[in-house]
Amino acid sequence: MRADVQRFGLIDPGDVTGLRNAIERGSIKPREIVAVIGKTHGNGLVNDYTRGYLMMSLSQLIGGHTGGSAQSVCERVPFIFSGGVEGVLSPHYAVFTVSPDEGKADGQSLAVGVAFTPPLLPEDVGRQKQIDLTAAAVAEAMSRAGIASAADVHFVQVKGPAFTLADIVEAGGRGRSCATDNSGKLMAFGRAASALGVAKTLGEIDPARADESAVLKDFDAYSSVASVSAGVEIRTNEVVVVGTSASWTGPLTIGHASMSDPLDIGSVVQLARDLGFTAEPQIPTHQAARVRAAFVKCEAPRDGMVRGKAHTMLNDGDMDQQRHIRGAVGAIVASVLNDTALFVSGGAEHQGPDKGGMIAVIAEKPGAGAADAR
Amino acid sequence: MRADVQRFGLIDPGDVTGLRNAIERGSIKPREIVAVIGKTHGNGLVNDYTRGYLMMSLSQLIGGHTGGSAQSVCERVPFIFSGGVEGVLSPHYAVFTVSPDEGKADGQSLAVGVAFTPPLLPEDVGRQKQIDLTAAAVAEAMSRAGIASAADVHFVQVKGPAFTLADIVEAGGRGRSCATDNSGKLMAFGRAASALGVAKTLGEIDPARADESAVLKDFDAYSSVASVSAGVEIRTNEVVVVGTSASWTGPLTIGHASMSDPLDIGSVVQLARDLGFTAEPQIPTHQAARVRAAFVKCEAPRDGMVRGKAHTMLNDGDMDQQRHIRGAVGAIVASVLNDTALFVSGGAEHQGPDKGGMIAVIAEKPGAGAADAR
Amino acid sequence: MRADVQRFGLIDPGDVTGLRNAIERGSIKPREIVAVIGKTHGNGLVNDYTRGYLMMSLSQLIGGHTGGSAQSVCERVPFIFSGGVEGVLSPHYAVFTVSPDEGKADGQSLAVGVAFTPPLLPEDVGRQKQIDLTAAAVAEAMSRAGIASAADVHFVQVKGPAFTLADIVEAGGRGRSCATDNSGKLMAFGRAASALGVAKTLGEIDPARADESAVLKDFDAYSSVASVSAGVEIRTNEVVVVGTSASWTGPLTIGHASMSDPLDIGSVVQLARDLGFTAEPQIPTHQAARVRAAFVKCEAPRDGMVRGKAHTMLNDGDMDQQRHIRGAVGAIVASVLNDTALFVSGGAEHQGPDKGGMIAVIAEKPGAGAADAR
Amino acid sequence: MRADVQRFGLIDPGDVTGLRNAIERGSIKPREIVAVIGKTHGNGLVNDYTRGYLMMSLSQLIGGHTGGSAQSVCERVPFIFSGGVEGVLSPHYAVFTVSPDEGKADGQSLAVGVAFTPPLLPEDVGRQKQIDLTAAAVAEAMSRAGIASAADVHFVQVKGPAFTLADIVEAGGRGRSCATDNSGKLMAFGRAASALGVAKTLGEIDPARADESAVLKDFDAYSSVASVSAGVEIRTNEVVVVGTSASWTGPLTIGHASMSDPLDIGSVVQLARDLGFTAEPQIPTHQAARVRAAFVKCEAPRDGMVRGKAHTMLNDGDMDQQRHIRGAVGAIVASVLNDTALFVSGGAEHQGPDKGGMIAVIAEKPGAGAADAR
Repeated sequence: MRADVQRFGLIDPGDVTGLRNAIERGSIKPREIVAVIGKTHGNGLVNDYTRGYLMMSLSQLIGGHTGGSAQSVCERVPFIFSGGVEGVLSPHYAVFTVSPDEGKADGQSLAVGVAFTPPLLPEDVGRQKQIDLTAAAVAEAMSRAGIASAADVHFVQVKGPAFTLADIVEAGGRGRSCATDNSGKLMAFGRAASALGVAKTLGEIDPARADESAVLKDFDAYSSVASVSAGVEIRTNEVVVVGTSASWTGPLTIGHASMSDPLDIGSVVQLARDLGFTAEPQIPTHQAARVRAAFVKCEAPRDGMVRGKAHTMLNDGDMDQQRHIRGAVGAIVASVLNDTALFVSGGAEHQGPDKGGMIAVIAEKPGAGAADAR
Repeated sequence: MRADVQRFGLIDPGDVTGLRNAIERGSIKPREIVAVIGKTHGNGLVNDYTRGYLMMSLSQLIGGHTGGSAQSVCERVPFIFSGGVEGVLSPHYAVFTVSPDEGKADGQSLAVGVAFTPPLLPEDVGRQKQIDLTAAAVAEAMSRAGIASAADVHFVQVKGPAFTLADIVEAGGRGRSCATDNSGKLMAFGRAASALGVAKTLGEIDPARADESAVLKDFDAYSSVASVSAGVEIRTNEVVVVGTSASWTGPLTIGHASMSDPLDIGSVVQLARDLGFTAEPQIPTHQAARVRAAFVKCEAPRDGMVRGKAHTMLNDGDMDQQRHIRGAVGAIVASVLNDTALFVSGGAEHQGPDKGGMIAVIAEKPGAGAADAR
Repeated sequence: MRADVQRFGLIDPGDVTGLRNAIERGSIKPREIVAVIGKTHGNGLVNDYTRGYLMMSLSQLIGGHTGGSAQSVCERVPFIFSGGVEGVLSPHYAVFTVSPDEGKADGQSLAVGVAFTPPLLPEDVGRQKQIDLTAAAVAEAMSRAGIASAADVHFVQVKGPAFTLADIVEAGGRGRSCATDNSGKLMAFGRAASALGVAKTLGEIDPARADESAVLKDFDAYSSVASVSAGVEIRTNEVVVVGTSASWTGPLTIGHASMSDPLDIGSVVQLARDLGFTAEPQIPTHQAARVRAAFVKCEAPRDGMVRGKAHTMLNDGDMDQQRHIRGAVGAIVASVLNDTALFVSGGAEHQGPDKGGMIAVIAEKPGAGAADAR
Repeated sequence: MRADVQRFGLIDPGDVTGLRNAIERGSIKPREIVAVIGKTHGNGLVNDYTRGYLMMSLSQLIGGHTGGSAQSVCERVPFIFSGGVEGVLSPHYAVFTVSPDEGKADGQSLAVGVAFTPPLLPEDVGRQKQIDLTAAAVAEAMSRAGIASAADVHFVQVKGPAFTLADIVEAGGRGRSCATDNSGKLMAFGRAASALGVAKTLGEIDPARADESAVLKDFDAYSSVASVSAGVEIRTNEVVVVGTSASWTGPLTIGHASMSDPLDIGSVVQLARDLGFTAEPQIPTHQAARVRAAFVKCEAPRDGMVRGKAHTMLNDGDMDQQRHIRGAVGAIVASVLNDTALFVSGGAEHQGPDKGGMIAVIAEKPGAGAADAR
């Protein structure tokens, strides 16, 4: 098998020109699409409808080509969109495809697998059920990707459900208590539980720590490759596992790094160099086309400090902390990668070290020479 | 003469503990304070009252020690505050002092001079009058600083008046038309005209281009050392010229660079290296204490693009473009300087190249060994 | 002919359950839908994508029933959505249908007609072309509605195109200058020009005043029945004329009033009484079901004052003036009508008297007894 | 004794022209000021520094006249400022004075008393300690006001401390757990506990219900006259009790009403009529000068519904729920009182019935004829 990743800019969340053109010119076969991950224009919070809008737009486009309904496309393909392109960031979506390839494998190449949990109710979010179902879905996706070792997994993207106040109230009416009655905070619970599920399956933490009691409490328990978002437009946890495998072919590879705090530019530069780029500290323009996609999780440090000085992100009533931190860390990563179409997502609970987060970059292998083919 | 710069963190805009303690322990003599430049907690837009609050707090503290009224302190000392500490940025203020020094000068050292224009009315903002009065004030401040050559000027901070809608309406009632009836846009006019005034005096542009007709139009006309803010709390243009001079002494120096666009991290790294830091790309912690203050201007590119990809800053109705760009560029600079107490200000009209901006850093000379004295 | 109006609540902009159920139970025939007007969850500004999302959702639902593509539905049916449900307001959409009715007319009944202008470019917005094309479309819609006299027109809803910064830049690239290079301000120009077009056709102003030079300047020139919105999701001016006619049948009627300023609750109460409600000042719950839809335009007074005291709406950098004024005037109207599913739209340039705006209410005629049929 | 209340508009939070002029022309004697209650320009959330700014400005003005330091004025006079003047609301402050009066009392007149609790720590907020200390302070203030019966108390304004994230973290460092680690939510805990304290002292609830366990849970336990705000600028609960007493003189009186939900305009109209105004529904302009001050508490209904239809206030990530509800309820009250300088505060936990809130109006008695004296 051979995995490919193509990124398209997004004028507005109803605009699917990029993928449509790629399909029409034959560079993407709709049936080979296995996942789409992207950043949309909204605020990334509960009332962000740009994610659902893009999901509707893309699923209809793909369904129109593959013959199924938009609904059936959504049941097969994870559409994982995160809102919020603060600062220099640019709205876009990355389309993952898997095609048969009879060529001979040459070392490790990019490998992708997907899986879904059963539907989750508001009262399941942040609870043991979400941890365990996510852990199982990660194992299933790894197996589908043919990735044998957890060490070869570099990125696990999870998208789980968010619920509005009305949903939380409705759960209460059924006699079920949610982890919190604050809809934004419930998104954090969901991200946290899902990340613990990833960490459990990949052996990053002792399985006993992947416990409901650790959610949003034991921040030393984390996954260094998990990236979790939540949105009102879905009801299951969708899981995309990305790594490398010697049984896959193609010009792409992936690497990842932990960021120890929002200013940890050194880890980003080192990752770029590990992937064969000349980053001094910025990847030069002629190399930058080799970057196929990048995924970043980050958070506003809970103790109110960055490098010993106070930040204001957690006291700001006008601008959510996630908009602050995405804009800041996104700019730092963009300044290294020389690329602004980055998937940067706030809320890194149990995703990378506390205060920091993670970054994964999919790139063409040095000398693979595919960049100019696009 | 000998110039010093000390920075203090700011818990809230009424908190002047840092300066009070410095005065009480004798490390700052109140009468030697010649300027204060800082970043406060507000949004940096018209309805940002944190600037006025800090000005009131500091002028009373200083007045209490020097004997004059707060008002008289404000007439002598420019208090230049810019609101907006998005992302990793940290609220703070830098106190500039000048003291007699009979020591022998050893090469170039930091030199500072200040001046004020007469009061400006709403209808003067963005007009020839503001250009010319600012140009004259820059010349006056240079002269006071004893800086002979424009090449030795590395930073000119200007703070001019902002006006609310009520002020603009009032001007109309007097039969005077303002450059625009939008209060936020009028701030941009004022920054632009002031920057052209700086560029004229420093010989950065042909004097004929420092014309009202160039304001917010001829963006190739700019100053590479001007940084201009506006706020409702003042009525004159306050000017602080900072450079180096062989007739001053002390351990400090200053350098500056143009940033060609928001991702121009290379210029920041190069400036750090020029100042003697090991920036790979981040200044290591043990060197970072040598940074005394840093000043950055930046802007959201007007053509809606960063490195060929669309940004959303200028279409966002929820979060002002200045909050976006300050958070982004501030984070990039912080990641290099290993410091978050940076003066980062949006609205770089005619301040640095179009799309980009400027950065100036005041630091201890390498080996000056003063960092540990604080 | 017989016109009907049914309103449906909106969980999110992809939710069309209300209309789907109505179609499935036969209370709405999809081919009889002539217009949909609604309020969505977004901010109502340039980056509000909830309008386009709902348009896509509804046009696909209708197209699925009538056989055409979503695109063809949009070319036939105006979908006029305005974002922003601040405060007590509730997201919803009102579906206008017209059905043949061989019954005998009994006095004046609700009459509806629609029309579209040709596509408009960014440089056409706020210009004479938009005034004149809108004026012509209003005449065409009146004719289709069979409304003979302008005095019988109580509401003209217009939705015109908004353009992003990228569109404005693109126009500049073609050598065409837009009325402003600020995307939000361009929406205001478009609303203003469209309103002047309405006023011209209805004879509310001397035709000579419906001139480009009056746009956003001559605020004494206004239409008392025009309500204009703008959004990035459309490219023509869509026009819906609503009034009464003796040649139509059915239980519905419509009335309108001018509001002289944001606090003019008296006009709202009087309109409710004119429509047969007991408003003391609030319509009692048992009568409130007779309200079928209500449309309000309002604005933050440009002189910064409401009843002689300063408001802060025009100086607020955190929250757009439109969010302020919609929340305020919407609440006042809701408190009288005992209904929160109101179409309240900011930006009342030339729509109702300066400082104020307009209100139109569609209701069952007293004693028509249809309320309980729904 | 004789109580007076004078209101002044506020250009910015450093502007105290109104009170200064009143002092200079002798209409207010600085030593007779017993409390100041006002609305400032900020967002009313944790990062609102306009409250502290106005407190500093006013305390210095008063201290300059009475001889004490600003600090000593703050220890004697409660300065209770709430941020947020959304929509039509106007920034202002109401100055309460008490002067000796040897005149003969003529029925009930306005009576005022103040008290302070000891300082509260972050971990005290929302806890039994805050309930009990507030209850004691209310009793003390009533006693000072000479109000014998709880039935004569119409308004109890409390302002308590808010704490930033840094304060909460610091408490944790001392081994003390706060009621929540969310700084905004902690403000809600403080308002709730304080309101229960008021209700206890006034006998509005069984004393057993004024228990920590009821805070933000037992919403049937409430005070119909309590209005509580919180801000980072103070450290104690400041209490102002306002009612009527036969042992006071003067032209003023006060009334109050509960609002059952945000649309309960009927209660506002009835209160206006009870105070002798002709409200049909709006107080006519010639009577409106008799309104001396008005105080409103309101909240976004927790179940997400207003009159059976969904509101969006609790799901909005761009605009805080308090900004939504203040703008809405403030406009409704303003439309009745014909006055926009209203103290409208969100967060009505245990202050008035659940979903609703309270309103108190200080006005000249009908025929008292003082309005034109100002």
